Amino acid sequence: MPISRIAIGTREEATHPSALKAALAEFISTLIFVFAGQGSGMAFGKLTGGASTTPAGLISASIAHGFGLFVAVSVAANISGGHVNPAVTFGAFVGGNITLLRGILYWIAQLLGSTVACLLLRISTGEPTGSFGLSGISVWNALVLEIVMTFGLVYTVYATAIDSKRGTLGTIAPIAIGFIVGANILAGGAFDGASMNPAVSFGPSLVSWSWDNQWVYWVGPLIGGGLAGLVYELFFISHSHEQIPSAEY
Amino acid sequence: MPISRIAIGTREEATHPSALKAALAEFISTLIFVFAGQGSGMAFGKLTGGASTTPAGLISASIAHGFGLFVAVSVAANISGGHVNPAVTFGAFVGGNITLLRGILYWIAQLLGSTVACLLLRISTGEPTGSFGLSGISVWNALVLEIVMTFGLVYTVYATAIDSKRGTLGTIAPIAIGFIVGANILAGGAFDGASMNPAVSFGPSLVSWSWDNQWVYWVGPLIGGGLAGLVYELFFISHSHEQIPSAEY
Amino acid sequence: MPISRIAIGTREEATHPSALKAALAEFISTLIFVFAGQGSGMAFGKLTGGASTTPAGLISASIAHGFGLFVAVSVAANISGGHVNPAVTFGAFVGGNITLLRGILYWIAQLLGSTVACLLLRISTGEPTGSFGLSGISVWNALVLEIVMTFGLVYTVYATAIDSKRGTLGTIAPIAIGFIVGANILAGGAFDGASMNPAVSFGPSLVSWSWDNQWVYWVGPLIGGGLAGLVYELFFISHSHEQIPSAEY
Amino acid sequence: MPISRIAIGTREEATHPSALKAALAEFISTLIFVFAGQGSGMAFGKLTGGASTTPAGLISASIAHGFGLFVAVSVAANISGGHVNPAVTFGAFVGGNITLLRGILYWIAQLLGSTVACLLLRISTGEPTGSFGLSGISVWNALVLEIVMTFGLVYTVYATAIDSKRGTLGTIAPIAIGFIVGANILAGGAFDGASMNPAVSFGPSLVSWSWDNQWVYWVGPLIGGGLAGLVYELFFISHSHEQIPSAEY
Repeated sequence: MPISRIAIGTREEATHPSALKAALAEFISTLIFVFAGQGSGMAFGKLTGGASTTPAGLISASIAHGFGLFVAVSVAANISGGHVNPAVTFGAFVGGNITLLRGILYWIAQLLGSTVACLLLRISTGEPTGSFGLSGISVWNALVLEIVMTFGLVYTVYATAIDSKRGTLGTIAPIAIGFIVGANILAGGAFDGASMNPAVSFGPSLVSWSWDNQWVYWVGPLIGGGLAGLVYELFFISHSHEQIPSAEY
Repeated sequence: MPISRIAIGTREEATHPSALKAALAEFISTLIFVFAGQGSGMAFGKLTGGASTTPAGLISASIAHGFGLFVAVSVAANISGGHVNPAVTFGAFVGGNITLLRGILYWIAQLLGSTVACLLLRISTGEPTGSFGLSGISVWNALVLEIVMTFGLVYTVYATAIDSKRGTLGTIAPIAIGFIVGANILAGGAFDGASMNPAVSFGPSLVSWSWDNQWVYWVGPLIGGGLAGLVYELFFISHSHEQIPSAEY
Repeated sequence: MPISRIAIGTREEATHPSALKAALAEFISTLIFVFAGQGSGMAFGKLTGGASTTPAGLISASIAHGFGLFVAVSVAANISGGHVNPAVTFGAFVGGNITLLRGILYWIAQLLGSTVACLLLRISTGEPTGSFGLSGISVWNALVLEIVMTFGLVYTVYATAIDSKRGTLGTIAPIAIGFIVGANILAGGAFDGASMNPAVSFGPSLVSWSWDNQWVYWVGPLIGGGLAGLVYELFFISHSHEQIPSAEY
Repeated sequence: MPISRIAIGTREEATHPSALKAALAEFISTLIFVFAGQGSGMAFGKLTGGASTTPAGLISASIAHGFGLFVAVSVAANISGGHVNPAVTFGAFVGGNITLLRGILYWIAQLLGSTVACLLLRISTGEPTGSFGLSGISVWNALVLEIVMTFGLVYTVYATAIDSKRGTLGTIAPIAIGFIVGANILAGGAFDGASMNPAVSFGPSLVSWSWDNQWVYWVGPLIGGGLAGLVYELFFISHSHEQIPSAEY
């Protein structure tokens, strides 16, 4: 049972220099990711006079988020494990791969990184940051969408970056993690924005102060990410012969 | 002759925990892949009011399927070999790299994964799933298209993931497998949807209950995939010094 | 002086099984590459009723050729070196990395592969294959374009795949080789089609029997590829401690 | 303090054959990169009759620069470290990873490479090269944009290519470095062209002789790149057990 591996951690651990360095890495990575991702939406708004999205707009969002997340995960991979997403951190916690205190530190860093990115975008472009919203579907539909898409994302994180039997797959893990988000945006982006990441939807909502259906973008990804952690740990990871270094997921 | 290496397998093998785990991995990977791929077509339908595809729509389908398949192959690679496609499984069988029973298990998992993905898309978006169809070409033209494109896909699987002399190529194998599908969609997508994968066309057909020319999307990929397995085994693989682990293709 | 390393080869070498296997690999890879690349142009023609290219059409060509060439180089890399291009073979010859006879064998295989791909496209889609042509520039402008772009391509082949000091760069060599073509198409594609590869322009010209300015698509790439081979060999390769296996480039 | 590690270098070092080879590699790489990147903008201008950019134009610029920079960094990586950008060279200098004289040599090579690329584009296409400019934002907004985006770029260079603890991340470093530029262009490209690289904006300005706000494209990237070097060195690199070879960053 993976549940038995959940750990709370100690205050010493959370304030240990390596924990603070990891939080700083998460902050910078989330900033880089949200700046490119949310910025691409603001650029589309500027170029089209605020028109609703088109296939070209969706492709732009897909590439900006896919490439941006790939890079954000890469640059933090050896320092914090490269979560860049509270749902990934939660999925890692559910599977027993990060302690509670360190996870909370990551969440704070991720939310701060997203917020600073949106503030910088707001200041430098003068455009509204916008916020995530539903387009022609109910909030329950969006909940299913976010659960399924985030399940795919966190399952990818487990298979390519956490699983100690990943082998050479680890080399391309950041690309896979970025590109599943890029692919899912082409599907879900037209319906609910395809967040898969509470930090990604939190920053824009805070800066534009619009909180409609914000809960969906938290509950959906956390359920999907938690499920992925449980499923992968239960069925695919054997814990007999492995060591989990705390700095890598 | 590769034919001599074809094996039927035993019931014990097919119900062995590792076979069931492999089938579960195939199910989840196909679900992730079809959700992004078919979902991108449904998103295009929603954004354009159901208009027929445009160059931008084709690019969107190419990226969604290319990125999605890359990730789906990656996350299953170390568990099931990452087939995610009955034509790949058939090509592996023809080359003697998977037993009949295990192959049937994979097929069931792949078809189920595609169907569940389409059901989830149908429920969460409210859009019709659509189905694969011909656009201005005959069914025989489509058969040629599917044979040629699937030959390229399964040949890529052999060269980068099955061949024991693949070397460092194995590291980028999932990217190559995903991207040949992305490239082929830009060519064949405008004519017959460019399936190259019976599971990809089966799920949407079942959920929307439209079976026109379904056989083309089975016969074409199976011929193409089988041919690729035969050609690669006959000309490029020497069997003297290798061992083929059953869990990798 | 690299010139001193040029070798003619013997008839035995050219008809050696490994040479024929390498030629077969070049044939299949060029077929796969041209099918996706040229097919993407034909799909654009069908979707737009034969309109002249647009930014979306250029993006489609870029992705189809970039992804397709990456895969075509990958699947042949360990068998023939993955040239998939007479200009690359010529550049390898100029640098002393392939014999004359083996190079001629590669050329024949590449031209055949491109021709068969165009025939298959013509048969299965019913669309005209089109051919490469100039758009608003002179033939001398096109010559400069092809020289510069092919120089970049063959220089990339040398730095990532031939240079024995390439290290881990070798792992991503096929991606780099494919993507420089994808990038250059976004620049040169609007002016002369951005061939960089005599096989890519030969097949469509043969099948549609239109040979206008065909020489530019041979002379340009051969000059650019030859220059790249000379420059890289002269300035960046030291030959003292290396062995060049004949099967890799 | 990284400052203490800054070195001026000697004249012998700057004229050493390996320094000249490195400068030649920087020249060629910047030429390849700018040819594809700036050329994609000129192609868009030609296809649209000089219309202002659209989402498709931004996607084209993103892919051309992302793919092109990835390749340019790859082919120079083992010779010069693959800077291809005065801001990267400055960031490496601030962190003590390149000497002043060698850095100046790199700058000259990069500016020359960009200029020659623009001249070749001008000659071969007959189109104006254009130049970087502001679109609806002030010069101070652009300064913030360039600082933030270049910070992300040089931070990526440090984490994936300079940090001696980068591990397998080094294999995909050139892809990450190229793709962060591709992602940022989708955000900043609509506002100030998203240069992140003084060489990229210098060449077009020189050839078209238009210098409006040129300083922003120097000061912004240099501040952002320098900051990234300082932050990464201060917080994430431990200098006790490493050796920094002069030829790799």
